[in-house]
Amino acid sequence: MFELIGNIAAVLTTAAFFPQVIRTWKTKSTDDMSWSWLLMLTIGVFLWLIYGISNSLLPVTAANGVTFLCLSVLVYIKTSNFLARR
Amino acid sequence: MFELIGNIAAVLTTAAFFPQVIRTWKTKSTDDMSWSWLLMLTIGVFLWLIYGISNSLLPVTAANGVTFLCLSVLVYIKTSNFLARR
Repeated sequence: MFELIGNIAAVLTTAAFFPQVIRTWKTKSTDDMSWSWLLMLTIGVFLWLIYGISNSLLPVTAANGVTFLCLSVLVYIKTSNFLARR
Repeated sequence: MFELIGNIAAVLTTAAFFPQVIRTWKTKSTDDMSWSWLLMLTIGVFLWLIYGISNSLLPVTAANGVTFLCLSVLVYIKTSNFLARR
């Protein structure tokens, strides 16, 4: 039972970033996102990815791999906005 | 070594929400945050909290407990904005 809860949690916390990436891609607006949040989360998720690969934990690897890609898109858009304003 | 990476990842992905909560508390601006992202992530993190408690995994419980509190603040602010505009 609790494994199921863990799997649902992993899917939700990963899939959650899809609508956020779609919204941000459409609006190109990232002002409400804190740079610290975005960079800390992206680095943290990348480390979870390394942790998952090195321990052969497929769920951790898959979930954080997908989340890392989503966060990279957000970092790209927020960086583009920053450079465009300089 | 890889346990250290996991611990750093857990701290980063949790602590990342502090600057975001501080920014949102100051600006009260949540337009760039997708409702789907916020609700899915909050529910997912809550399930990770249940998973951590039920499996007596202190790191999972602590990290997701803190993250859940942070997300609850973001949900509160976004909901207040929504109700204020109705």
